[in-house]
Amino acid sequence: MIIDKLIDAIKRTDNPSVVGLDTCLDYLPQDMLAKVKSLDDAAEQIFEFNKNIIDNIFDIVPAVKVQVAYYEMYGYQGMKAFKQTVDYAKSKGMIVIADVKRNDIGSTAGCYSKAYLSGVEVAGKKITAFDSDYITVNGYLGSDGILPFVKDCKENDKGLFILVKTSNPTSGELQDKKFENGNTLYEEMGDLVEKWGSELIGKYGYSSIGAVVGATHREQAEIIRKRNPHTFFLIPGYGAQGGKAEDLAVCFVNGIGGIVNSSRGILCAYKKDKYQGMDYAKAARQASIDMREDLNSAIKK
Amino acid sequence: MIIDKLIDAIKRTDNPSVVGLDTCLDYLPQDMLAKVKSLDDAAEQIFEFNKNIIDNIFDIVPAVKVQVAYYEMYGYQGMKAFKQTVDYAKSKGMIVIADVKRNDIGSTAGCYSKAYLSGVEVAGKKITAFDSDYITVNGYLGSDGILPFVKDCKENDKGLFILVKTSNPTSGELQDKKFENGNTLYEEMGDLVEKWGSELIGKYGYSSIGAVVGATHREQAEIIRKRNPHTFFLIPGYGAQGGKAEDLAVCFVNGIGGIVNSSRGILCAYKKDKYQGMDYAKAARQASIDMREDLNSAIKK
Repeated sequence: MIIDKLIDAIKRTDNPSVVGLDTCLDYLPQDMLAKVKSLDDAAEQIFEFNKNIIDNIFDIVPAVKVQVAYYEMYGYQGMKAFKQTVDYAKSKGMIVIADVKRNDIGSTAGCYSKAYLSGVEVAGKKITAFDSDYITVNGYLGSDGILPFVKDCKENDKGLFILVKTSNPTSGELQDKKFENGNTLYEEMGDLVEKWGSELIGKYGYSSIGAVVGATHREQAEIIRKRNPHTFFLIPGYGAQGGKAEDLAVCFVNGIGGIVNSSRGILCAYKKDKYQGMDYAKAARQASIDMREDLNSAIKK
Repeated sequence: MIIDKLIDAIKRTDNPSVVGLDTCLDYLPQDMLAKVKSLDDAAEQIFEFNKNIIDNIFDIVPAVKVQVAYYEMYGYQGMKAFKQTVDYAKSKGMIVIADVKRNDIGSTAGCYSKAYLSGVEVAGKKITAFDSDYITVNGYLGSDGILPFVKDCKENDKGLFILVKTSNPTSGELQDKKFENGNTLYEEMGDLVEKWGSELIGKYGYSSIGAVVGATHREQAEIIRKRNPHTFFLIPGYGAQGGKAEDLAVCFVNGIGGIVNSSRGILCAYKKDKYQGMDYAKAARQASIDMREDLNSAIKK
């Protein structure tokens, strides 16, 4: 099962982190940026950048999270770079999380699922356009917005991370509001995630149907960890957004329980004094090592 | 303002409906389907199909809603067909709603917004890859997931439809739950929509920041209509999903207040006995006329 593969990869690399490839042109070094005159060029340079990052981290980082928004803004050309990035990371043995936050109902949710998880039939052949291991989804529409994805996860050994408690400052505006039954919206969403994932639990006791739980909201993360014993967390918000290792440690039980994302902190490490003199790929590797140490020191305490 | 342009177009065509271009291969007639051997072929035939539909409805229907999931599943090639469809519909004077249900936070929401509303800068030139008039978005992440879009709407004369009460059977699972303050989740979301849209109100009293309100839930639609006097509705769920003209009439005040979507009912009309002998494009035109009459008979009562 994909959740077992993910946890095995985390154990093998001793690294509960995922590098977010939220690559926009601003992150590229000047010499690469200078080559960009069109959307095609942008897509080409972005993939080139990602490829170099992947080449320098694949042996020490278990997974990449590719944020599709950064590719979509460069048009269908950007979507080609997205696909190339997903394919390349998989070819190097990394687990790929497509951070797409898709959501829709019934057959339309099924289309998104086909795009990333299960494939469309074209002239008798099945093609999965952006073939990923995991995608992120938004559950505001309820069960019939999620179950088409869950079905495809079962049949194709894929996984989901469903938004429960997001890392942004105003996530509480709706997510922290209490219902009449005493539960907050994020708790209700979390309970649904536990239910939706109940048939996909692997050997470590975690399900392939996971949750997005921000590193920036320690109190809520602790509550969700207790309510959701089988839910594995994708944890954004570390670093640039202010989430600290000691806060997100509450997401882990005996060293397992989640995977922590860093995007800009890794991709733009070469712009920091600390990594002066390194090119972007070497700096990304060193920043990944530093992140691993920071996380493990808090999680394994 | 885009909301005024939309309402003017509805008045000019006397037609409060939008045709949903949720075009998948199954909808294509046999002779077109036979040409599809690859994702490139699929994308080409889908655009060809859409183009013929648009040519046959643009003078009697004010808008199209292009559901991106149906294009994404055909890969970046499908996304090219999506772009061609958006561009072609605009070239024929139609208002284009990109049904993308995107959602993310801060700068990532900003990337989605650049993709559809405001554009990226490439070599000193601004390019909006999928340049639409409206997009649909999901507000589960709260204000900092929505305000980047609202800002771009202000600056580029664009609009949003934010998911409030969706048309699917289980939409009530979360959306209808009552908070301690007595409001349901969909009411709270609706209140935020009214607030987010307060600075973009046009000459008819409606805002460019609208809401998605399903035709299948009459009771909730009536409540939202009362709470949200400035919110224009995008109304899915008519026809195939079971929503009836007399039910969704509660969304309208003096004949204005929303735009009703039909996708399969129009695109696949040629497969129905009622339109026998017509090709798909002619059948789509006749089905659009029939839908207009059905809607107006209920809305103008």
